[in-house]
Amino acid sequence: MNAPPAPGWHAVEIERIRPGARAVDLDRCAVEAPLDIRLHGQSFVMTMRTPGDDADLAAGFLLSEGVITSADDLVALVPSSDGTGVDVTLGSAAAAQLERHMAARRQVTATSACGVCGRQSADALAFDAAPITATWTIPSAVVDVLPARLRAAQTTFEQTGGLHAAGVFALDGTLLESAEDVGRHNAVDKVLGRLLRARRLPLSGSVLCVSGRASFELVQKAVRGGVPMLVAVSAPSSLAIDLARQRGVTLAGFVRGDGFNVYAHAQRVA
Amino acid sequence: MNAPPAPGWHAVEIERIRPGARAVDLDRCAVEAPLDIRLHGQSFVMTMRTPGDDADLAAGFLLSEGVITSADDLVALVPSSDGTGVDVTLGSAAAAQLERHMAARRQVTATSACGVCGRQSADALAFDAAPITATWTIPSAVVDVLPARLRAAQTTFEQTGGLHAAGVFALDGTLLESAEDVGRHNAVDKVLGRLLRARRLPLSGSVLCVSGRASFELVQKAVRGGVPMLVAVSAPSSLAIDLARQRGVTLAGFVRGDGFNVYAHAQRVA
Repeated sequence: MNAPPAPGWHAVEIERIRPGARAVDLDRCAVEAPLDIRLHGQSFVMTMRTPGDDADLAAGFLLSEGVITSADDLVALVPSSDGTGVDVTLGSAAAAQLERHMAARRQVTATSACGVCGRQSADALAFDAAPITATWTIPSAVVDVLPARLRAAQTTFEQTGGLHAAGVFALDGTLLESAEDVGRHNAVDKVLGRLLRARRLPLSGSVLCVSGRASFELVQKAVRGGVPMLVAVSAPSSLAIDLARQRGVTLAGFVRGDGFNVYAHAQRVA
Repeated sequence: MNAPPAPGWHAVEIERIRPGARAVDLDRCAVEAPLDIRLHGQSFVMTMRTPGDDADLAAGFLLSEGVITSADDLVALVPSSDGTGVDVTLGSAAAAQLERHMAARRQVTATSACGVCGRQSADALAFDAAPITATWTIPSAVVDVLPARLRAAQTTFEQTGGLHAAGVFALDGTLLESAEDVGRHNAVDKVLGRLLRARRLPLSGSVLCVSGRASFELVQKAVRGGVPMLVAVSAPSSLAIDLARQRGVTLAGFVRGDGFNVYAHAQRVA
């Protein structure tokens, strides 16, 4: 009952920056897109996912949430033809269980800490914030060293090997603030929150560097903080690239010390 | 206004398994614990985070969500003395904006796709599912090879370098099903959902392997699927270890081909 397999990647134009070389090239990025899981016609949850196996994802999500416990609880699982949702019909026992489950749980009054998942529809991805218009440039050699400097500031990672980090850097590569967390979105929230409380927003002369991959939510946080450039050690998702292009954020990925790829607004990299 | 710094790690007893050697040892794991962010006395969101910088985290979260745009919107940020919450008082403009924001957004009727964040309180972390009691054992040499076999099955990762993977394996190391996604929780939901739909739950003779770290939510998903063992390429969090111990799940981390650490129920590793 899954929809036809959707490619998990998109082709994307990038600028490939290597020591002494710079070229426009085509690359592939993992697709990130919203999926509405609907129960009996009502939106139950919105999740950001890579398209494909959407019916499996809906079934597994409902299992993880305790809404269903076996295949018998699923009467129908129908992915929508446009690939944006799955309509689920529960058996009567699971439907009754869900009623109790929802009544017992107090209403969730806000979106999740992930910034995007947990919202009730893809419309909720829209947000108002000024687009980034900073005209500065940063040398590629400075970008290259940011992840190593961030890593050097990670005290707990050294102890556990288990934490994400986020750091805000000045354009000369000086680390202004950094934070660690089991959640990469939390690490970014901590560092942006600290600078907000210090009345240093918007961070229009700064670069945000993250230890992992760049998702939609991390670009969204950069925009909220007024940060013109996001540097990620690993790959960006399709939606991260789309949002960065739309909002004026320079997005660099695979930054590992010997060159990197720029997925949006490469004009800021000198 | 942040609470006194809390250590980001806990000491934890492990079994360190290396080729030809096995020893009980002490290690350190990153702490994962729930934080309630409350607005004017009402719970706004619950997030799983590493303790420390809780006031910064609350400020940054509210910025990311568009609830506040500057430090002027924050009248007070008070971490609770027990380290489980932050009480936020908004300025009148931000409070009025929040009213409009909440009215415009339809209610989120369920928990987030992350399984744990987005819930309104830590109580919501409790869940009922049968504890795992399987008595089989698996050779450590089989555990060692699971991540490489999972990686070999990742078709989109090869194209993009940007996806998490999850696989369910038989006890002889045969891959039964695997899935990829930008979200590690989604990759697990996809593979468990597929096996549920194929009426193969509970997966009591199987091992779940994930490409990244092991958080609370991933152990929770293993329990829901009846999987007695979770194998992670990277580190587990404190709460993942606690839940695995409590629910009878064998938890192995840093599984990279030449030995690994077992954080819970090591009796299943021969």
